[in-house]
Amino acid sequence: MLRFEHESLPQRVCFASGQAAAMLAGEIQRLGASRVMVLASQSEAERSEQLTADLPVVVHHNEIAMHVPVEVAERARTAAARHEVDAIVSVGGGSTTGLAKAIALATGLPIVAVPTTYAGSEATNVWGLTEGARKTTGVDARALPRAVIYDPALTLSLPAPMSVASGLNALAHCVDSMWGPRSDPIDRALAQEGIRALRTGLPSVVADPTSLIGREPVLYAAYLSAVAFSSAGSGLHHKICHVLGGAYDLPHAQTHAVVLPYVLAFNAPAAPEAEHRIATALDASTALDGLQKLRDQLDAPRALRDYGFDESDIDSAVDAILPAVPANNPRPVTADELRRLLHAAWRGAEPRTITSNTEK
Amino acid sequence: MLRFEHESLPQRVCFASGQAAAMLAGEIQRLGASRVMVLASQSEAERSEQLTADLPVVVHHNEIAMHVPVEVAERARTAAARHEVDAIVSVGGGSTTGLAKAIALATGLPIVAVPTTYAGSEATNVWGLTEGARKTTGVDARALPRAVIYDPALTLSLPAPMSVASGLNALAHCVDSMWGPRSDPIDRALAQEGIRALRTGLPSVVADPTSLIGREPVLYAAYLSAVAFSSAGSGLHHKICHVLGGAYDLPHAQTHAVVLPYVLAFNAPAAPEAEHRIATALDASTALDGLQKLRDQLDAPRALRDYGFDESDIDSAVDAILPAVPANNPRPVTADELRRLLHAAWRGAEPRTITSNTEK
Repeated sequence: MLRFEHESLPQRVCFASGQAAAMLAGEIQRLGASRVMVLASQSEAERSEQLTADLPVVVHHNEIAMHVPVEVAERARTAAARHEVDAIVSVGGGSTTGLAKAIALATGLPIVAVPTTYAGSEATNVWGLTEGARKTTGVDARALPRAVIYDPALTLSLPAPMSVASGLNALAHCVDSMWGPRSDPIDRALAQEGIRALRTGLPSVVADPTSLIGREPVLYAAYLSAVAFSSAGSGLHHKICHVLGGAYDLPHAQTHAVVLPYVLAFNAPAAPEAEHRIATALDASTALDGLQKLRDQLDAPRALRDYGFDESDIDSAVDAILPAVPANNPRPVTADELRRLLHAAWRGAEPRTITSNTEK
Repeated sequence: MLRFEHESLPQRVCFASGQAAAMLAGEIQRLGASRVMVLASQSEAERSEQLTADLPVVVHHNEIAMHVPVEVAERARTAAARHEVDAIVSVGGGSTTGLAKAIALATGLPIVAVPTTYAGSEATNVWGLTEGARKTTGVDARALPRAVIYDPALTLSLPAPMSVASGLNALAHCVDSMWGPRSDPIDRALAQEGIRALRTGLPSVVADPTSLIGREPVLYAAYLSAVAFSSAGSGLHHKICHVLGGAYDLPHAQTHAVVLPYVLAFNAPAAPEAEHRIATALDASTALDGLQKLRDQLDAPRALRDYGFDESDIDSAVDAILPAVPANNPRPVTADELRRLLHAAWRGAEPRTITSNTEK
């Protein structure tokens, strides 16, 4: 029984290595903008000035902070108003794109995003702001960039380990898109394409981080993973990682990398379509075989105990995760099963044990 | 080298068997519409009245004609204005959707489309109007339905032979999306998903036209094929069929069904990505093997000579097709090769002969 709702969002995507400046000029012209605000962190300032040298820029704004603090957003909005800006160009990772969204949310100004990492925020209408320790997120059409400029050459400066961590994060987005609460077959097809591109790209990035051979498919996959995941919503994997990262302060990327095979081992036997799509995309006989082979090639993190997670915290983590498990998860999740999953991830045990221990 | 532009269009897609009326009510409410115009042909009038019984309908309009003649469009626009309509619901195939687009083009009114065939027009921003014998087409954001209601139960009334013809037409859209002039990897991934759904669905429709088992994936594929093809543009296959249909009055669906394997045999050896995607989607060792196996299951048409095409017309057809061949076709197309392709399609020869004769 095929039953779904899907919403496709209006966005232009331009993708070409070494062409960021030319593509950016084309999109600004298309918008008819004549007073451009350029957002970039201090470390990206020089590069963003070069990329936008031929644009009608009225202000370069370089105050970028993680999680978009409201006071940072307010200062950027004030600058946009003072300079009578009619378009925003963001050059950078998730924090820079996030600031552009915060301005657009208040002003309706169009954004052209130039991502330099695999964060994926540029492909979604999700915004986030933090006030003190409290993060507020939401969905708004104004937050969606009108156009995205993907230039894989801009990601060559991303070191290989960070590229792998970020790429595995994109992979986790794709896998969780297979069974997220709003997952539909279009999300799953795009996620499958993303997984395929990561399988070909990530090992090449590790083999030669200075070559575009691997950078191109990984950046393409980052886009697909964001489109699929923002449509499908957080599945079991992201609910687990959200608790581990939030309550136990585990490092984001490593936590995702460790937990993913255990969630896959747990869910895949009950999700034949996902199993088939992931296995096909990874060109492997099973989804888990393919994931483990890819993880081996990338020397991915293996155990939560290596990243500061304490065995004695497993029970409280289970209590925090259980109420957040999506109702549509392919198989019901009990406290016992979740405990077994976290124990295995803590030890770095063979993920197959999750499947066999819970199969009756 | 990955290099592309892709534009995703804003549209809601609701898909559920037997739920058309409920989904339609939801979308009309979402639009806040209170004066709905319902378009349906005479043969669909009763069904469309049932589906829209709970909506605030101010006018049912049942003058539908193929290719949307301008005078038919004018009368529909007049009716929309007279009844101060604030939304259009179309229930039917390509001609009905096309009329809704003609009204929207002039008025900006939002469309909710309820397709009852596999035509796919509902998923594109392409409009068409005919004045006498002359057809004008164009692309306009206003022509794109805001929402599409896919209810596979509505397609059960489509007879099996027409379903197969229409499904093979969707397959041709998917295949040509692999190398159309604006083809990008996102189009190709969506087309691959469409081919996969057609491979599972079409044999089931033939085996039991009254079951939803096959109807669901085929309707889903019709949507995907339209999204991919309208983004990628007409490739070699559609250029050939356009000439054969226009100048020699061959039947649309049969012409597509006959020509497709020859174009695939010709292009695929020079298009490894397309070859791999199509073969994977058809679960076959090669794209052509998979297509031929599917065509056998469907008892698809085999030779142009069976549909009124005369061998003596091949030379003039070649002259008409050659200038229309897209510059980005995976391999250059000479007059000799095109002649050989059409001869083979005319006779219904083994398509592999096209590959081997032209390979050096």
